[in-house]
Amino acid sequence: MKVTVLTGGVGGAKLVLGLAHALPPADVTAIVNTGDDFTHLGLRVSPDIDTLLYTLSGKANTAQGWGREGESWSFMDAVRSLAGEDWFALGDGDLALHVLRTARLAAGEPLSTIVGDFARRWGIASTVLPMTDDAVATILDTDEGELAFQRYFVARRCEPRVKAIRFEGADRAHPAPGALSAIAGADAILIAPSNPFLSVDPLLAVPGLRQALADAQAPVVAISPLVGGRAVKGPTGKLMVELGVDQGVAAITAHYQGVIDGMLVDERDAPADLGIASARTDTLMLALDDRIRVARSALAFARSLRR
Amino acid sequence: MKVTVLTGGVGGAKLVLGLAHALPPADVTAIVNTGDDFTHLGLRVSPDIDTLLYTLSGKANTAQGWGREGESWSFMDAVRSLAGEDWFALGDGDLALHVLRTARLAAGEPLSTIVGDFARRWGIASTVLPMTDDAVATILDTDEGELAFQRYFVARRCEPRVKAIRFEGADRAHPAPGALSAIAGADAILIAPSNPFLSVDPLLAVPGLRQALADAQAPVVAISPLVGGRAVKGPTGKLMVELGVDQGVAAITAHYQGVIDGMLVDERDAPADLGIASARTDTLMLALDDRIRVARSALAFARSLRR
Repeated sequence: MKVTVLTGGVGGAKLVLGLAHALPPADVTAIVNTGDDFTHLGLRVSPDIDTLLYTLSGKANTAQGWGREGESWSFMDAVRSLAGEDWFALGDGDLALHVLRTARLAAGEPLSTIVGDFARRWGIASTVLPMTDDAVATILDTDEGELAFQRYFVARRCEPRVKAIRFEGADRAHPAPGALSAIAGADAILIAPSNPFLSVDPLLAVPGLRQALADAQAPVVAISPLVGGRAVKGPTGKLMVELGVDQGVAAITAHYQGVIDGMLVDERDAPADLGIASARTDTLMLALDDRIRVARSALAFARSLRR
Repeated sequence: MKVTVLTGGVGGAKLVLGLAHALPPADVTAIVNTGDDFTHLGLRVSPDIDTLLYTLSGKANTAQGWGREGESWSFMDAVRSLAGEDWFALGDGDLALHVLRTARLAAGEPLSTIVGDFARRWGIASTVLPMTDDAVATILDTDEGELAFQRYFVARRCEPRVKAIRFEGADRAHPAPGALSAIAGADAILIAPSNPFLSVDPLLAVPGLRQALADAQAPVVAISPLVGGRAVKGPTGKLMVELGVDQGVAAITAHYQGVIDGMLVDERDAPADLGIASARTDTLMLALDDRIRVARSALAFARSLRR
């Protein structure tokens, strides 16, 4: 059973790890949000892709929720001593991804080739694809003016009030090589429990990806990012209030209307008529076992659906 | 007494540190070879400047002879795991200089401004100037073909036989801002005991610097890089053989003919008629005391000379 999953950062990476244990890992393709990507200190940083690479290769710092396990911080200490920008933390080991990616991009390699090579080098049998090799930037219009994603998310800790979100460059972006065929050839397509507005919408804003989802033969199932009606972490709840979206899984289902065929809802959530096929399970993914179980639930639910 | 010293890497940095102890450090200006500079993994590396910054700020790894004391190596480990180039070792803390320099150069700042800022941030009261803000590259013509300096020095460990050395871009390079006035305004000008062919010649190949030395009112004194007739470290002796230069301080003095007014020779060397003013002292600089003593000897010798 070939599965293609659209995913963002940490929460999505947990599901993809579960899928890579529930299935032969080579049967899993992750198409990853790159709207968070940005250039910092001249280095090209791809936070969601890197989180997935660390997670799938067993290098993720799961306690911290981002970056590498056992990371050291000599670089940041030296940057601070030189009065360099230190609002975005780059670990010593983590820098290798950014330095090598930046050098290879500058040499003309597309991001997807570089990421594929990184994954191979780290023994990742699943396919990790950026959503596009083109530049897309998630920009938030806030009460402090327009902020690029990392400025909002890291530097300003999601504190500014968000009025609108746009994905600069998305309308001209082409899906990365392999993304369309991974959607067309999948037996199930999943949308990971990532932030719908910040992590999944950039993917859906790439015209070719949205069309491929519409044309796919396999059912598309979203795993709700809400557990007991609330986001596990991150600004989903705050954002929904600010964007004037009703709280709860019904609003997220409505947000995905026309894209998904089914919604996998946390069993703690209040039952609601979603106007679409749904299933319920414990979607909280604390340990690896949880991730595998949620992955299996999503796959079983997808199998039960037809287009 | 204002002193300006032309210097290369490790040996030169020892002398500059001695000068900064023998004099008020603000009275010392170092003009540093940038012919070794190169771009590695997309990062601009300035080995001789960085060695001097580390030495003057007390951060140098004196046992290793290069890099930072207490350095960690997570970056290189991760680079290797990704099959990145690992022939040139970049320490985690060391990376801060390269990343910030590269980002600031890309933003249009000249190297001299960046280096001056680094020095200030690290509390270095002496002036550290690159020889030029223009690109100059030391290229060795060897029996393995043309090699850029670091390829010869680090990757090939000085093993190839050298037929000729050239300094690409030097003829069009302008001295960095402040370099000419530091030479014109000095009470003594020193040439550090760096490799004459690889570290000092690039400086002398910048037309404005060579002319400024000729026009200077202060005497120019070279400290011989030979101790007991041999180079303390590095490829000086091997190079002299390959380039068909006689071994010994007389040949080095001849090499500097027209540039220097005096040569400070190690007391172990066999006396020789250098055809120029000379003085003798113990030039081996193992500990800080040695460096201060050699600096004082060079300054006293320079004071005894007139142009």
